[in-house]
Amino acid sequence: MDRRDFLRTGAAVGAAGLGRLVAFPGMSLAAPQVPGQEASSSSVVRLNSNENPLGLSPSARLAVEKAIPEANRYPDAAREELAEALAAKLGVTADNIILGNGSTEILQVIVQASNAPQGTLVLADPTFEAIAWYQRTLTYATEKVPLTSGFAHDIQQMKDRVAAGKGPAVVYLCNPNNPTGTLTSCAEIDAWIEAAPETVQFAVDEAYFEYVKAPGYWSAIKWIQDRPNVIVARTFSKIYGMAGMRLGYAVAHPETARRLREYLTWDNANSLALAAGLASLADEGLEARGRAVNEVALTITRNCLDELDLGYLPSQANFLMHRINGDAKEYIGRMRERGLHVGRPFPALPSYNRLSMGLPEEMELWAEALMDFRQKGWV
Amino acid sequence: MDRRDFLRTGAAVGAAGLGRLVAFPGMSLAAPQVPGQEASSSSVVRLNSNENPLGLSPSARLAVEKAIPEANRYPDAAREELAEALAAKLGVTADNIILGNGSTEILQVIVQASNAPQGTLVLADPTFEAIAWYQRTLTYATEKVPLTSGFAHDIQQMKDRVAAGKGPAVVYLCNPNNPTGTLTSCAEIDAWIEAAPETVQFAVDEAYFEYVKAPGYWSAIKWIQDRPNVIVARTFSKIYGMAGMRLGYAVAHPETARRLREYLTWDNANSLALAAGLASLADEGLEARGRAVNEVALTITRNCLDELDLGYLPSQANFLMHRINGDAKEYIGRMRERGLHVGRPFPALPSYNRLSMGLPEEMELWAEALMDFRQKGWV
Repeated sequence: MDRRDFLRTGAAVGAAGLGRLVAFPGMSLAAPQVPGQEASSSSVVRLNSNENPLGLSPSARLAVEKAIPEANRYPDAAREELAEALAAKLGVTADNIILGNGSTEILQVIVQASNAPQGTLVLADPTFEAIAWYQRTLTYATEKVPLTSGFAHDIQQMKDRVAAGKGPAVVYLCNPNNPTGTLTSCAEIDAWIEAAPETVQFAVDEAYFEYVKAPGYWSAIKWIQDRPNVIVARTFSKIYGMAGMRLGYAVAHPETARRLREYLTWDNANSLALAAGLASLADEGLEARGRAVNEVALTITRNCLDELDLGYLPSQANFLMHRINGDAKEYIGRMRERGLHVGRPFPALPSYNRLSMGLPEEMELWAEALMDFRQKGWV
Repeated sequence: MDRRDFLRTGAAVGAAGLGRLVAFPGMSLAAPQVPGQEASSSSVVRLNSNENPLGLSPSARLAVEKAIPEANRYPDAAREELAEALAAKLGVTADNIILGNGSTEILQVIVQASNAPQGTLVLADPTFEAIAWYQRTLTYATEKVPLTSGFAHDIQQMKDRVAAGKGPAVVYLCNPNNPTGTLTSCAEIDAWIEAAPETVQFAVDEAYFEYVKAPGYWSAIKWIQDRPNVIVARTFSKIYGMAGMRLGYAVAHPETARRLREYLTWDNANSLALAAGLASLADEGLEARGRAVNEVALTITRNCLDELDLGYLPSQANFLMHRINGDAKEYIGRMRERGLHVGRPFPALPSYNRLSMGLPEEMELWAEALMDFRQKGWV
């Protein structure tokens, strides 16, 4: 299960680099230390898993600590509280919400619940790999449709693949898309949903929803009351900084939600994750802080890439896909030698690397390294 | 998802009861409060979900607090550490271990991975309900075999049902059995495993393994290297006091483990649960403390039942099934009115209630209530 690679024993960042981490001036966006907690013991800078470098919000940290004495109890009541809080935030009702062990469990139960002998799973290439992984044990024919030249989902091609299928279809739309960070037109998606029969099950993954700044982007949640064939997946792993806590959710028609719940693992969300999720939802500044620090990190990253004349895709997320003028695996290895974990190979984009946004000072360490790589003729 | 019912707004325990909770003398088995943590805010005594009243071990509490600053990171490295630690404890290797989101996910992936058109799931009645729930979305014929008059699994009957099936079988053996707390002869189970073909998949649930004191009981882990058709499920929810943390595991042949992993949810264990699990495994006194307090609770419980001449099954777990001379639902409601959550109805045993062991002082509250019920002619 090590699809990511958090080599904690990796090379240490040099003393100069660590000095800068401590000394970075100006912004105090990072969550303050809760008294008594130790700082991260990591000796590497992790820019490879689209995590939120701010960590849990201060109020979520306190909520977790407060919940520890009850961690011996099954978490049923807290599940309902969180579903209610999410429903209130999203303008739906709790019967529209299902909680998952991360949003990855949501994707898993979607393909399980929609599995059918002649079914087709249609998804982009590249896109987030989880749903394609989960269908491997099922009976889908999987149709991967390359992104357009503008790195959007190729909706027309995807429609054609659905039409060519022999039975029902699951359509996975990751918007913004991972690993490209790019958007697909919501109007185009809406038109498809509007016209599609109920045998086309839309799984719209909005894991990075809260990071999007582009106008003309909106959630597919607008469809869920009228269209039982639209499921929206969201997560606490990204803007909420809770990747290690494993908490995601789906928003769907009550009947669809009921059907998906049949496939969930019992008590699938940890009680401390539920406590952190509730506190995070109540932290009104959390999303703004996450977007602000992400924007600073993106600016540092883009400035460096511009200076080196390395192209990049227009990110609407907390990561950015950029050119490296060479082999991704070699590039990743060289960065790792400097204590920087960046991306992983994406076969569809071999001369690109996906860079997750860290703290601004971490991005400056990366920029320094990349400048050095240019001097060495590596990028 | 509220199969249990932790009504946190339930009736408060009377002032006298709470006073006794605080004043209980003699034993200091309960985990001490970590400074800064609040005590449980529950106003009810929960004796209905086979949780461990001691909570997380002190070292696990500290480990969770220490892990909070990294809770924004995916938990891959910690997964491997925990698998290694479990393997070392059990005398197997890490490739024999799979981690689950509670042991319930283990049961879920067993029926998923073994699903076959003509398959049969054979299990006891009553037994833990999870595996029967999970098979509902699959193609099994389910065969429920009543326990023997001694409340053991009826191995001969179960064998007969397997033989009568048209295809492969999954055999679920919960030992000790939930909700009865009773043992099935390990020698009898061994003889079946020895003789069975590979098409019979044994799922041996040892959630309560650490509580067993009876001689002649042993783990089915002894089989896993030679028999790929034996899977043992274990949990951190019971003796480790981590029910809210959702962490379980299976021990199986490497090839079986590989097959089951295909069905797991990605990153299925929360990083704080992994930290608590590691610390708990390192806490050498944890199991003994859990058994000791459980034994005191069982003694209080049995003494009360003996005094009232209410029969009970010979428990080898952290709960006990006893007669109530009446309707279970009514009994549960009456206890609830006194702030005591006890059991839930088990259709196979309508005049019994399953009582989970709490702290000794909590069992005394229950005993007082039961004595009072007798005076009222209710039990």
